[in-house]
Amino acid sequence: MLSKNQIKFVRALELKKNRKREGLFVAEGPKVVGDLLRAGYEATMVFSTHERQGAQLVTDDELRRISFLQHPQEILAVFRIPVMEEEAAVDDTQLSLALDGVQDPGNLGTIIRIADWFGIRSIFCSPDTADVYNPKVVQATMGSLAHVNVVYTDLVKLLSATHVPVYGTLLDGKDIYREELSATGIIVMGNEGNGISQEIRKLVSRKLLIPNFHPSSETAESLNVAIATAITCSEFRRRS
Amino acid sequence: MLSKNQIKFVRALELKKNRKREGLFVAEGPKVVGDLLRAGYEATMVFSTHERQGAQLVTDDELRRISFLQHPQEILAVFRIPVMEEEAAVDDTQLSLALDGVQDPGNLGTIIRIADWFGIRSIFCSPDTADVYNPKVVQATMGSLAHVNVVYTDLVKLLSATHVPVYGTLLDGKDIYREELSATGIIVMGNEGNGISQEIRKLVSRKLLIPNFHPSSETAESLNVAIATAITCSEFRRRS
Repeated sequence: MLSKNQIKFVRALELKKNRKREGLFVAEGPKVVGDLLRAGYEATMVFSTHERQGAQLVTDDELRRISFLQHPQEILAVFRIPVMEEEAAVDDTQLSLALDGVQDPGNLGTIIRIADWFGIRSIFCSPDTADVYNPKVVQATMGSLAHVNVVYTDLVKLLSATHVPVYGTLLDGKDIYREELSATGIIVMGNEGNGISQEIRKLVSRKLLIPNFHPSSETAESLNVAIATAITCSEFRRRS
Repeated sequence: MLSKNQIKFVRALELKKNRKREGLFVAEGPKVVGDLLRAGYEATMVFSTHERQGAQLVTDDELRRISFLQHPQEILAVFRIPVMEEEAAVDDTQLSLALDGVQDPGNLGTIIRIADWFGIRSIFCSPDTADVYNPKVVQATMGSLAHVNVVYTDLVKLLSATHVPVYGTLLDGKDIYREELSATGIIVMGNEGNGISQEIRKLVSRKLLIPNFHPSSETAESLNVAIATAITCSEFRRRS
């Protein structure tokens, strides 16, 4: 049986300030919870509608009360947010991503899933990017959060200090399909409405453009940032 | 001032059976409504919080009552669903998409937006694919619905009758980055959980695979169907 305090405690983790204070976040469903456990994330509480070692048994109705999902999925766990010990730095032997103000939790989660697919191990986020431990982001990653390091840091400082090429998609960039792309470097993706911010734009050393194939130029179409990330990562990886 | 009947009428268009009966659908926001009007869609009612020719002036509160958005955007219009006169057939001078049971309205909307970006004019949907006139789909297209024809039809019949290559991403497919891809043809994308159905799979003449670059094969990752569509369309278009 769930206590009122337990319900209140779990529900409170919807808010970033509470997650930060407690150092905890929520993940749900056998796939996401399982991937995090296998990756070594520490669960401090586990609630399950099925008998399970180390889990507190709850009814469907109780799970509904603590779940952030429209359709709760058997299991909900509270995990400890990993503590970053080292200062953020770009690994110059890898391809990494930097997110400059991505706001939508669904987009952030999808981008983490894309990074995992393409074997990208590190994502650096500006402090104004959506919080990776937001329950909506955690669920949208479909477990990929377990395989990708997401670090919040000052991107100006990070990108100023790196010697690898800094790529970004910009309107005055060069056709991504025809440009040479390196196997190591960092790819910056910008905010949904405004793209890459002015100060980060100055640090982009290789400007890229995803050309559209729309027959008329009447309409100003745009690509969703997660879609643009997928196309960009695909272009980098197919050549490696 | 909005009447109770008007509110009831617009809200009822959330359901497919009502949209079908009335032959009407709802679009919101200056971008989406503007794109549809410019493309020749016929608006039967327009509600706006700003003075606008042909529009009924409403207050912010009234707009909220008829809107399907969390944050209503100035204007809401009711449009006539275009009537398809001809029987569905694949244009063998073009690249087209076929969707076999795509369920999520957000995914369908995003796929329409991707098609628009890549200059794909026709999307053929199985009858069990999400309804393109669902308000969530209309909004997720960001206006691209105005430039792409979406037709619901029997995909078995359609694909059996065509002479162009039928592409599909399948687990036993060949590396999309290395395969030859034609400038015309039809690309089949499947359901979020089950992929392409058994009967449609038999009609796929060119099987493709989007390889992952994940260092370990421990985890069964997957790509969201909209992301897979973007990568596939990008590969076709970059070569044309």
